[in-house]
Amino acid sequence: MSDQETGSGPASLDVREAMRTARSLRRFRPDPVSNEVLARCLEAATWAPSGSNAQAWRFVVLRSPEVRAVLGPAFREGWQWVTRIYEDNASVQPARNPRQARLMDTMRHLVDTFEQVPAYVLFTYRLSGFVPEFIEGGSIFPAMQNFLLAARAEGLGTVPSTWFTFAQDKLRAVVGIPDEWRIAALVCVGWPVGRHGPVRRRPVSSVAALDTWDTPLIEGGRLR
Amino acid sequence: MSDQETGSGPASLDVREAMRTARSLRRFRPDPVSNEVLARCLEAATWAPSGSNAQAWRFVVLRSPEVRAVLGPAFREGWQWVTRIYEDNASVQPARNPRQARLMDTMRHLVDTFEQVPAYVLFTYRLSGFVPEFIEGGSIFPAMQNFLLAARAEGLGTVPSTWFTFAQDKLRAVVGIPDEWRIAALVCVGWPVGRHGPVRRRPVSSVAALDTWDTPLIEGGRLR
Repeated sequence: MSDQETGSGPASLDVREAMRTARSLRRFRPDPVSNEVLARCLEAATWAPSGSNAQAWRFVVLRSPEVRAVLGPAFREGWQWVTRIYEDNASVQPARNPRQARLMDTMRHLVDTFEQVPAYVLFTYRLSGFVPEFIEGGSIFPAMQNFLLAARAEGLGTVPSTWFTFAQDKLRAVVGIPDEWRIAALVCVGWPVGRHGPVRRRPVSSVAALDTWDTPLIEGGRLR
Repeated sequence: MSDQETGSGPASLDVREAMRTARSLRRFRPDPVSNEVLARCLEAATWAPSGSNAQAWRFVVLRSPEVRAVLGPAFREGWQWVTRIYEDNASVQPARNPRQARLMDTMRHLVDTFEQVPAYVLFTYRLSGFVPEFIEGGSIFPAMQNFLLAARAEGLGTVPSTWFTFAQDKLRAVVGIPDEWRIAALVCVGWPVGRHGPVRRRPVSSVAALDTWDTPLIEGGRLR
């Protein structure tokens, strides 16, 4: 079924290399992103696990002028919200190093031109009601992550965001999302101006423990 | 940093192939799973995105007798809970085909021998408080998915579960999890008896829309 639906796949990319270099990209070329390539990435999304394999997900590709008119102002409001948090609270303010300054410039550029993002993908989910809401996320965010990795393999740039929350009601209305479905994330998609590159993360030694919370899995560069 | 910490990686595996064949495996050989291979998979977990790149995660590898003594009864309680739901509610009862019967047998075997699972990995997360709890999951479940895919590449079998909730307090106490951290998932890990194989999912055509909820992205086998 799927090969016919979504065409031939992208060039092979090692799974660890895909994960290691799938950093968020926020500047996109104006070139369109075809439904064909998006469908291949969404097919990868469907391969994710979900509780009881219920697959209670629906993915909505967005590009209509009506949707763009809702998203642009919402994301500029999100940007203002974040910059206000930074201004009000020096403790969460990013250090003003050149890398951080470039990131802030790129984010401002993204929100200023948000209506021109080639495509957006909405990840929606129908709660099972069997587990707390935080844990329900385990049945939709793995699908989003598969999408991001498949997009990386295609050479697409992506950035997931939660700022759709600033226009949640309007967005639900314009897309026609039924009441019992939640929006989990909105992902911007486009052919990137910049290049994929290594993500910046703290080392595994600082976040992995063995059996008890304060027993590091790796200590002094050695595995326990 | 990371190469030294976690050793050389596994044989190359294409990212789409990893996603397509990362089905849950629930029968494990008794062979131990080394901290080295788990650290490589956890390194992949750290490569996942998180809101504001906050990386508010901590991963705990579990194998102590004390933890096993808590998890075994919890997962057997989870199993009883699910079978009760099936008995009480015919509409959610899996069809009694041979494949489903095999799955039920495998799940019963897993919970009956839960203390012998070679290793468990706990994915924990400190809520940011900036978004609804459901959406906070977007900052931890991508890390879990990266872990599952990295484990697939290593040849490890995994199955994520939420049944840790049946012994949440005891588990938190024995591991020493601080109050402000949530458990997102517990993943069982082992060298599998069975083989990795294609996941079973509904086709992307049934779950993907374009611009409005009821406009399929793919219709009659053709992309819109």
